[in-house]
Amino acid sequence: MTRFKLVVEYDGTGLVGWQRQDNGPSVQAFLEAAAGRLAGHPVEAVAAGRTDAGVHALGQVAHMDLAKELSADAVRDGLNFWLHDGGCFAVAVRSAETAPADFHARFSAVGRRYLYRILNRRAPPVLERDRVWWVPHPLDGEVMAGAAGLLVGRHDFSTFRAADCQAASPVKTLDEFAVTPAGDELRVSAYARSFLHHQVRNMVGSLKLVGEGRWSAADLAQALEARDRTKGGPTAPAGGLCLMEVAY
Amino acid sequence: MTRFKLVVEYDGTGLVGWQRQDNGPSVQAFLEAAAGRLAGHPVEAVAAGRTDAGVHALGQVAHMDLAKELSADAVRDGLNFWLHDGGCFAVAVRSAETAPADFHARFSAVGRRYLYRILNRRAPPVLERDRVWWVPHPLDGEVMAGAAGLLVGRHDFSTFRAADCQAASPVKTLDEFAVTPAGDELRVSAYARSFLHHQVRNMVGSLKLVGEGRWSAADLAQALEARDRTKGGPTAPAGGLCLMEVAY
Repeated sequence: MTRFKLVVEYDGTGLVGWQRQDNGPSVQAFLEAAAGRLAGHPVEAVAAGRTDAGVHALGQVAHMDLAKELSADAVRDGLNFWLHDGGCFAVAVRSAETAPADFHARFSAVGRRYLYRILNRRAPPVLERDRVWWVPHPLDGEVMAGAAGLLVGRHDFSTFRAADCQAASPVKTLDEFAVTPAGDELRVSAYARSFLHHQVRNMVGSLKLVGEGRWSAADLAQALEARDRTKGGPTAPAGGLCLMEVAY
Repeated sequence: MTRFKLVVEYDGTGLVGWQRQDNGPSVQAFLEAAAGRLAGHPVEAVAAGRTDAGVHALGQVAHMDLAKELSADAVRDGLNFWLHDGGCFAVAVRSAETAPADFHARFSAVGRRYLYRILNRRAPPVLERDRVWWVPHPLDGEVMAGAAGLLVGRHDFSTFRAADCQAASPVKTLDEFAVTPAGDELRVSAYARSFLHHQVRNMVGSLKLVGEGRWSAADLAQALEARDRTKGGPTAPAGGLCLMEVAY
């Protein structure tokens, strides 16, 4: 068996997320089906992060073990061939490389970067539909950028944690949480060793309240301090979120 | 009647192009239907450029005359409301402003900018599917950039002119034709007062031959000189092309 590390891109629209589920198509199921066709045996794919339904990835990382002798480039091209052959146009393998047997896409990861895109204009999104959160009323990006900095650091992020989160502890270190304007978008970049379930989307949902002037930056700091999900803002929609890269 | 100038964004995938046709949905038909609902009378929409099926726009410009008294912002928001109400998610009005009665979206325009995106990587496009031309084998972007410059200037562009082109003359002045790398994309920006039918896609199709090493830059110059469509390269696919802006 050879272990391969894959960088995977997907369009989460219409998928139930990374993880195989009974109620719809998943990235994992598509990849495992393609790998089974390529290798001729059942294959399990393990990802760095189990993204939710509707969340996209440009740089998800997964690993899988293949018994067939194949070069890394042949694995990349073969998986892409069988993905298309299986009618899947929502997932592609950007790169493949051989990895040591103890490499684990999830447990070896030391950092994850997410990008959350807010489209802040009157007109609804067209070319970026399902890729952005459309907020038609004006947001104050500078105030949001300042407030975002208050969440950076080591904190108990219970306020931004989904009820079903299975992490052992709500304490995480957020290394970066930055808001940058880009045309009529506000782009929120988040980097940490790991995140709680829904953490980025919940932080963005609260940050939007700051951008609207409904919350002050101090309100955001107080919400964090409360360590109580009911004190946080709403969860931002899945479509605006993209897993950009995983560091090892 | 008040004339309005609109900046229009659309996703050309699945549309027959700007112009109303019997064989499928067009941007013009969607916009005119929405305007009819808004104004309560039949409305004609006239565009700066009649883009082909599958071609996108971030900055198409159109004009229309409305009898109803409406602010420009109400026209923008009203058109977007009726577009959505009519089941159209492929077209949005980015901005509207009142224009003089002699403003004409097509005849008043003094410049058009198009962007053509080539995705040059082994993995097929996923998040940018239908927005880029996927070329899986390596292209030499620097050589393409150098060759592109040979087409800039005032020339007889018959080699890059579609058979059905209705322009009075094949002589056009190409002000800019530049290739810029952006991640795993090559972006080709073209600016001119006006273009022949298929001119950008035909120039890009030939430029790709240069990037593959199948043509030299001199071959491209010779093709231009030949003033003969049969001496040009193939037409690049519609999905990679986007009308970015129209200048007045």
